[in-house]
Amino acid sequence: MSERIRGGLAPVVTPFKRNLSPDQERFIKHCRSLLSQNCGLAPFGTTSEANSISGDERISLIDALVAAGIDPSRMMPGTGCCSITETVALTAHAVKHGCAGVLMLPPFYYKEVTEEGLYRYFSDVIQRVGDARLRIYLYHIPPVAIVGITLRLVERLLKTYPDAIAGMKDSSGDWNNTKTFLDAFSGKHFQVFVGSESFLLENMSNGGAGTISATANVNPAAIHELYAECVGQSKFENRESKLEQLQVRLNVVREIFSSRKFPSMIAAMKQAIAIYTNDPEWVRVRPPLVELTGNQAKLLAAELKAIGFAMSGITKTSATRKPGMNP
Amino acid sequence: MSERIRGGLAPVVTPFKRNLSPDQERFIKHCRSLLSQNCGLAPFGTTSEANSISGDERISLIDALVAAGIDPSRMMPGTGCCSITETVALTAHAVKHGCAGVLMLPPFYYKEVTEEGLYRYFSDVIQRVGDARLRIYLYHIPPVAIVGITLRLVERLLKTYPDAIAGMKDSSGDWNNTKTFLDAFSGKHFQVFVGSESFLLENMSNGGAGTISATANVNPAAIHELYAECVGQSKFENRESKLEQLQVRLNVVREIFSSRKFPSMIAAMKQAIAIYTNDPEWVRVRPPLVELTGNQAKLLAAELKAIGFAMSGITKTSATRKPGMNP
Repeated sequence: MSERIRGGLAPVVTPFKRNLSPDQERFIKHCRSLLSQNCGLAPFGTTSEANSISGDERISLIDALVAAGIDPSRMMPGTGCCSITETVALTAHAVKHGCAGVLMLPPFYYKEVTEEGLYRYFSDVIQRVGDARLRIYLYHIPPVAIVGITLRLVERLLKTYPDAIAGMKDSSGDWNNTKTFLDAFSGKHFQVFVGSESFLLENMSNGGAGTISATANVNPAAIHELYAECVGQSKFENRESKLEQLQVRLNVVREIFSSRKFPSMIAAMKQAIAIYTNDPEWVRVRPPLVELTGNQAKLLAAELKAIGFAMSGITKTSATRKPGMNP
Repeated sequence: MSERIRGGLAPVVTPFKRNLSPDQERFIKHCRSLLSQNCGLAPFGTTSEANSISGDERISLIDALVAAGIDPSRMMPGTGCCSITETVALTAHAVKHGCAGVLMLPPFYYKEVTEEGLYRYFSDVIQRVGDARLRIYLYHIPPVAIVGITLRLVERLLKTYPDAIAGMKDSSGDWNNTKTFLDAFSGKHFQVFVGSESFLLENMSNGGAGTISATANVNPAAIHELYAECVGQSKFENRESKLEQLQVRLNVVREIFSSRKFPSMIAAMKQAIAIYTNDPEWVRVRPPLVELTGNQAKLLAAELKAIGFAMSGITKTSATRKPGMNP
């Protein structure tokens, strides 16, 4: 088995042009910037507005990244749709490009589905893709998808597909849940990523693989620093206290972006990228999401300034309009 | 404005072949059978496993119906996806075929979205489709989609798009909610369909347009009978008591199919069609749904027999296997 992807990954935010079509140029640029900060790419996560983007558009964006020379072994695109047909098409496409893995939502339209139904769903996808290189990371995000990934489901899938089922992303926001999965599948090549870097230290201390977190879009270097210290061999004095310090520093940034003062974390991050790259084109989101109001944008800018936030790896774009303005 | 579609409509169940691809032949046959019972067609509703079927597959099925000579003015296909791109593609396709309308889910991935975000979503779809023939029926099904359609959203949309916003399907299961919409928009050409025929009499007595109900797949004639009596001019004695009788008869059938003894109403109806057409191919569902077990199938058959249920408009298919068997 080739080496698995680990560390901090960003569910890459998707920039849109004025007509709301995906902006490939800015997308590639943002991905390059993330990679330069040792941040892996998880395009088409919840933060990427993945489900607001069609399958064809997603395929074009991955093709564009690969054509731009971005290494697929640093990518874990989201491919889970409500239909087997679409999930298989997106997954097979990612595997053919040699992506490190795919992040797969359960089918999320019907609620109260059975474990058997979900087992059949994932099983069918694996068999239809039919490629030994396939590595699936199951995506557990009950606050949004409602349909979740249970321990027993993973047990059954791992038993039948020990290679294809590579791990999970736990975005439950419940550390006890993450810990249960870590304990149950330790030593089985099952990698657990936490859905928020606020659990990164705990995750790494318990055998986890890293974090796939929204905030990695704007704070990749600091996330990588904590990850690297966790897996590093350095035996400096007060190691634990230093790790905790790094964790606290991450939490301060995350708290700002996840504030209920903003319509969504996604819109807040796009606003921050617009501010720090001096590129107001970045603020656009697709409905049903909405961008920040002018006042919210000012508040965000002030809060980030107050903590001395610097966006790592970001290069400014020359723009004629003022940052923070809605295009 | 041309005459609007009314009465009983079936969210047409989608038959699948052994490889789970949509079975066009059986689909067309089932649609013809429904039409012969004065039942309109709402392909790609929740009951149709719409979100388990890709956009391309949905487009092929509509094309097949039209090619088979089925009248698009009797069709209201479901076209609401999570992405504007896909919703626009499916909607424009339906409008070009001259469909009576489209049934449109709100984007259902993100939860806790704002009214403004949903307004922008529907507004954007209407403008992108850009066709004066477009008639949207907003689909409110909070138990499944979680994201719902509010009174205020409809008010705003109707104000801007009085022709395109044609009505709604209320599958909340809450008559008070339906009544609120009926009262608020009476006289505005806004047609309210109830999502269950158990509210048909009440809906028709309060200015409603009919029902788009799962059970219309198996009980279309009786649903039409109540609808026709409600809108008819007949002044027979004891009219109210007759209408109530018809309503009770509908409820008895619905109760069987919606029983929690079966994994889903969808699977139970497909099982019933398999039994009554002697065609076991019909039982297949796409994961994450599961079909009935052998025992559940026997129970369903017995319960239907006990009430003397006859499936209207159904022609038997010769089959070598016994009905009720899983293919």
